[in-house]
Amino acid sequence: MDEKYMEIALELAKRGIGKVNPNPLVGAVIVKDNEIIGEGYHECYGEAHAERNAVKNATKSVEESTIYVTLEPCAHYGKTPPCVDLIIEKKFKRVVIGMLDPNELVSGKSVEKLKQHGIEVVVGIKENECKELNEIFIKYITSKIPFVILKSGMSIDGKIATYSGESKWITSKESREDSQHLRNRFHSIMVGVNTVIEDNPELTCRINDGKKLIRIIVDSNLRIPLESKVLTNSDKAAIVVTTLKSDKEKKKKLRSMGIKVIEVADKDNRVNLKELVKRVGEEGIDSILIEGGGTLNFSALEERIVDKVRFYIAPKIIGGQSSRNSIAGKGFFKLDDAVRLEDINYRTIGEDLVLEGYVAK
Amino acid sequence: MDEKYMEIALELAKRGIGKVNPNPLVGAVIVKDNEIIGEGYHECYGEAHAERNAVKNATKSVEESTIYVTLEPCAHYGKTPPCVDLIIEKKFKRVVIGMLDPNELVSGKSVEKLKQHGIEVVVGIKENECKELNEIFIKYITSKIPFVILKSGMSIDGKIATYSGESKWITSKESREDSQHLRNRFHSIMVGVNTVIEDNPELTCRINDGKKLIRIIVDSNLRIPLESKVLTNSDKAAIVVTTLKSDKEKKKKLRSMGIKVIEVADKDNRVNLKELVKRVGEEGIDSILIEGGGTLNFSALEERIVDKVRFYIAPKIIGGQSSRNSIAGKGFFKLDDAVRLEDINYRTIGEDLVLEGYVAK
Repeated sequence: MDEKYMEIALELAKRGIGKVNPNPLVGAVIVKDNEIIGEGYHECYGEAHAERNAVKNATKSVEESTIYVTLEPCAHYGKTPPCVDLIIEKKFKRVVIGMLDPNELVSGKSVEKLKQHGIEVVVGIKENECKELNEIFIKYITSKIPFVILKSGMSIDGKIATYSGESKWITSKESREDSQHLRNRFHSIMVGVNTVIEDNPELTCRINDGKKLIRIIVDSNLRIPLESKVLTNSDKAAIVVTTLKSDKEKKKKLRSMGIKVIEVADKDNRVNLKELVKRVGEEGIDSILIEGGGTLNFSALEERIVDKVRFYIAPKIIGGQSSRNSIAGKGFFKLDDAVRLEDINYRTIGEDLVLEGYVAK
Repeated sequence: MDEKYMEIALELAKRGIGKVNPNPLVGAVIVKDNEIIGEGYHECYGEAHAERNAVKNATKSVEESTIYVTLEPCAHYGKTPPCVDLIIEKKFKRVVIGMLDPNELVSGKSVEKLKQHGIEVVVGIKENECKELNEIFIKYITSKIPFVILKSGMSIDGKIATYSGESKWITSKESREDSQHLRNRFHSIMVGVNTVIEDNPELTCRINDGKKLIRIIVDSNLRIPLESKVLTNSDKAAIVVTTLKSDKEKKKKLRSMGIKVIEVADKDNRVNLKELVKRVGEEGIDSILIEGGGTLNFSALEERIVDKVRFYIAPKIIGGQSSRNSIAGKGFFKLDDAVRLEDINYRTIGEDLVLEGYVAK
C-alpha cells in the first residue's frame, strides 16, 4: 500500500512542472484508515510546500494519520516555515518518505527529528522514481551547476537538414508537441548564435505561457542581430553569453535593451562552456535545455556539460556527407573518447522513436 | 490449434536458412488425432521439399491425417515431383496452408487440385509470418529482381567512424554476431570498392561455413587491388560489377583469376544499380545484403533498389561534420525525397538498438 500512495504523491508532484524551479517537485498524500483525506503539491516557487498544502486540503483531522511525501520534509526556515515542525505539531503517526533531502548538510535531519518525537518514519519508497523526478533539483542543489539536457530531432542517419538546408519538419507533429513539454520542465533553453541567425526562432514554451523559460544564446563573437526575435520579444528573459574579447559597444547596446550579457573567459576564442554553466547556475537557473545546432551540440558534449540526451528520431533517411549533422563540430578523434550513454530508454511517439539516456561519467 | 501447428511448421522452415536460396523456406507438420506424427522442412536447395520430408519422417501411416505447410504445395515437376500429388496419393484428409504460392501463374492451382480430390483445404493461417519468412523468395519469384537489405552499424548520430577513421568497433559483440546470422540468410553480400580498398574484408559468413554467400563488389572504374582478400579467397565466389567503359585488360585478368565480371551500363560514369540488380538476378541470386560504405549506401537508396534496412545503433555519440556517415553521398535535396521507412520494428541486442523497416514505395 505504501507504494500505491507514493505513486499518487508522485503524480501530484508532477503538477508543479514548469512552475517551481529551482525548487523541487514535491507531492504529499495524507491517509487515515485506508482513506485519502488530504492531497497537496508544491504548486509554485516561493509558495507553500506540498505537506502544508495537503494539511490545508485535508477533509478530516490529520491527527494519528500517515503522510506520504516524495521528498524528505524540510527542516529549515526558508520562504516558508519548516514542514517537519508542522508534521510534529499536527500529531501525525507515520511519515513515509520517497527520498532523503539530497543536500548533504541537512539530509536525514528531519527524519531524526520526527523519530525523536515518536513518529514512525519509512524512507525509500519509490526512491528511484522520486530521484528521477527531481534529477534537476538534485544536481543543482548539490553542485550549483545546472542540470543540462541536449535535445535533437533528426533522421535515423543523424541529419537535421537536407543538403539544401530544408529542415521543417523532419520529426512528427507529436514529437514536436512532446518537446514543448520538455521545454516546460526546464528553466532555460540554450542555442548557438548560428541558430538565431539562420532560423530566428522565438524559443518560447507554448505551455503555461512559458514565462519561466529563459533564453540563453551562446555568441562568442557577438554576431547576434539586434532585431532577432529572442531579443525583441521583451516580455521573456534572454541572456547572451559571450567572451571578454567581444565588441564592448554591442554589449552596452544589448544591456540597454534589457538583455543580460554574461562575459566568460574564452577557450580557443569560443565561450568556455564549463564556465558558462557555472555562471548560469549563479543566476539561480537550475537547468538548461540545449536545442543547439550541430556545432553547439558537439561542443557541449565535448566539454562534458551534458547530463542527459533526448533524441527524437524520425523514420526517414536523408543522407549526404555534407548535410547538417545533429552532432557536428570536429567530432571525437578516437572511439574511446566518444560519449557513451547509459540507462537508456526507448519509446515511440507518433511515427518517431524517442531515445533518452544519461551521459556516462 | 491450427495456429499452434503452423507455428511449429514455421520454426521447422527456419532450419533451412542459408541453405535453400533461391528456393523458399518451407516447414511441414503432420498431425493425426491431436498428435504430431511427422515433421519436415526444405533442408537444402535441389533436395526434397518439406512435405516429402515430413511424410518420410512420419512415425505412423499418414492416411486421414492433416498436414500443415507454410507454403502452398508445388504443383509442377521441378527438381522433385509435385508435392500436391504426394498429398493426394497418401490420402491426407486435410491440408492447412500458410500462404499461397506467390507465383501468379501457379498460385492457387494446388489448392484447387486438392479440393477436386475431396481434401479439405484451409489457407491463410499465420499468413503474415509465412510471408515475412519468405520475403526474399516472394520478391525474387515474382520479379526476378533480388530482395535487397541495407545493413549498417553506427552511432546514434549516424556515424560509422571517427574523423580519424577509427571504426572498430562501434557496435557491440552481440550486434556483430547477430549480423552474421543476417549474412547467413542472404545469397550475396555487396560492398563498394572503397570498402575493399580501405578495410580489405573477407566478407564471409561464419555460420554454415558461408559457402553460399557470394561477394559482389561494385567497382565502376575497376580500382580493386588484385591481391584483395575477396578475390584471392578463391573457394568463395566473387562477382565484380563494373561499367562497359572500364579497363578491358583488368577485366581479362580478373576473369582469368576465376572472378565473374559483370559489365553494366553506367549512369554518370558509375555502375547503374538498377541494371546491376537485374543482372545479379539473372545469375540466380535471390538476395543482396548491402554492407557498403556511406557512398554505396546512399546510391542504393537513391536508386530505390533497397527493400529493407537494418541499423544496429550503438549508445555512443561520435560527432563531427566530416566523420564518415552511414548514409553519405550527396544526400537527398528535399525532405520529400528522403527515404521513408514503414513497418518498423525495434529490439535491443546487447547494449545496442536494432531498428528494422521497409522502404516505403
